[in-house]
Amino acid sequence: MNNKNPKILVVGAGAVGAYFSGRLAQAGARVSVVCRSDYQAVKTSGFAITSINGDFKFVPENVFNSVEDYSGTADYVIVAVKALPDVNVVKLITPVVKAGTSIVLLQNGIDIEPALHEAFPDNELISGIAYIGVFREGQGAIRHQGSGRIKLGVYPQGISEKLTVLGELFKQAGVDCELSADIVKKRWEKLLWNVPFNAISVLAGKLDTKQIMNNPYLVELAENVMRDVVNTAIACGVPLETELIKWNIDYTKNFPPYKTSMLLDYEHQRQMEIDVILGNVIRLARQHNIAVPYVETMFALLHAINPSM
Amino acid sequence: MNNKNPKILVVGAGAVGAYFSGRLAQAGARVSVVCRSDYQAVKTSGFAITSINGDFKFVPENVFNSVEDYSGTADYVIVAVKALPDVNVVKLITPVVKAGTSIVLLQNGIDIEPALHEAFPDNELISGIAYIGVFREGQGAIRHQGSGRIKLGVYPQGISEKLTVLGELFKQAGVDCELSADIVKKRWEKLLWNVPFNAISVLAGKLDTKQIMNNPYLVELAENVMRDVVNTAIACGVPLETELIKWNIDYTKNFPPYKTSMLLDYEHQRQMEIDVILGNVIRLARQHNIAVPYVETMFALLHAINPSM
Repeated sequence: MNNKNPKILVVGAGAVGAYFSGRLAQAGARVSVVCRSDYQAVKTSGFAITSINGDFKFVPENVFNSVEDYSGTADYVIVAVKALPDVNVVKLITPVVKAGTSIVLLQNGIDIEPALHEAFPDNELISGIAYIGVFREGQGAIRHQGSGRIKLGVYPQGISEKLTVLGELFKQAGVDCELSADIVKKRWEKLLWNVPFNAISVLAGKLDTKQIMNNPYLVELAENVMRDVVNTAIACGVPLETELIKWNIDYTKNFPPYKTSMLLDYEHQRQMEIDVILGNVIRLARQHNIAVPYVETMFALLHAINPSM
Repeated sequence: MNNKNPKILVVGAGAVGAYFSGRLAQAGARVSVVCRSDYQAVKTSGFAITSINGDFKFVPENVFNSVEDYSGTADYVIVAVKALPDVNVVKLITPVVKAGTSIVLLQNGIDIEPALHEAFPDNELISGIAYIGVFREGQGAIRHQGSGRIKLGVYPQGISEKLTVLGELFKQAGVDCELSADIVKKRWEKLLWNVPFNAISVLAGKLDTKQIMNNPYLVELAENVMRDVVNTAIACGVPLETELIKWNIDYTKNFPPYKTSMLLDYEHQRQMEIDVILGNVIRLARQHNIAVPYVETMFALLHAINPSM
């Protein structure tokens, strides 16, 4: 691998995938993308990314309609498809995972790594967590409107040379990138915010974070949901600190009104990522005999209203 | 009191109040009503009641716009206003509660009697539970489309002569009326169904009972909510049987698709009775140190979406 110009294939170049891989391209990586819905537009003129950090154009080296069309050997395969139960990521990327390919998982939720780790035991698996407000506003058109950080770590733990190379590329492109030797814990930490605020934002009448924080009943509910998540994490051997609950409440009180990704999905009648964000917490909690009544209630209600596409 | 023709004043002659007092009038009672929104129409031509048991006309002896306009002494004052936190029932009926007046509470929810019992310690308080599908479909126009039973008992317990008289009148008019010496328990039994199915019907995407029962996650949620209610009832000294949970599930599976009253309110953007149906369960549970996480979650979400009028 050429550390300055590694070959990267992005599978699922939606808003998050396009933004971060566009940054890697800016730093010199040779980035190809697989994107279905915007294939024609991106093939013709790449991505137009409107960003709070300055607009930029991202023209991938190659644009594919399907994973099967890629015949090269990527140093990194970045998986940025939505984490939905009907998407089998292992099956999806099998054709492009070669000897020496690192798999970079850039998805929401918890406990999403084990299936890949088992399926590709000889490939390095990098788990990535994106903190970004970004959405697709048209064919090949991406709008980045908030944050833009990323945390990366080798799964199940540790820091590797290839991880460091990836981190350096992000930093060169101005992305706030943190490498973590304990990425599983980081994932739980993000989940701790995601479960209550995503679920409440949808179920309590399509509210942004400010509207949620102005309602004491919903703040109390968010705290109770977070307590369920902390208990589950601890039972799974991940020592989430209870203080994070108060920290998340204070943090959310102080940041500008924000619509969660689940609310955006719901408003556009797109399938919400309820299985990896809430369902997996319930599954893990049951394995460890932990009661998660608040999460269970939210899940059942979200499941009932989840758009099927 | 003339047992054949007692004087009855109905405060809040909405659909439920008009239907049941119309039946009492059929049996010979002298019924006057206080109704605000439909005052003119009812004053002019009474109520037109379309019923699965045969349509009928109910022309009250007197129609008042306000409780203050009633100058007589009623044998029974039937309270059938919606049970909302901004309606102070004690204050509302104080002008018409005289020596010898029995107060008949015909409202949803739990723990709604104590305030009246304290305010009028010398008046008999009859607690009534209506099982009926009935709604107002226009000025003075009521549609009765399902069931039509009523349970009555003296609060806090017992059966009195005046209760028996009232029960006889209902029976004469063909109403399935059960007198209960333990009406508080009956109220909890009805609540056991009302809490889960009202809340889920609204929060899970405006579903009727059939749609709820077709979703195993929602059935499980309904069971969990009922468990919260049973635990609270038992802590309050009301021995609700756990078997009622399964009974309610089977019963709901087998009856025709039904829209709960809370869903009808929500669809018409009318204030839902969440405080007396869910809020009071939470309040009582906290007094007895009982955890009711499922009810709490539903309450917080319903509170956030509750129309203000």
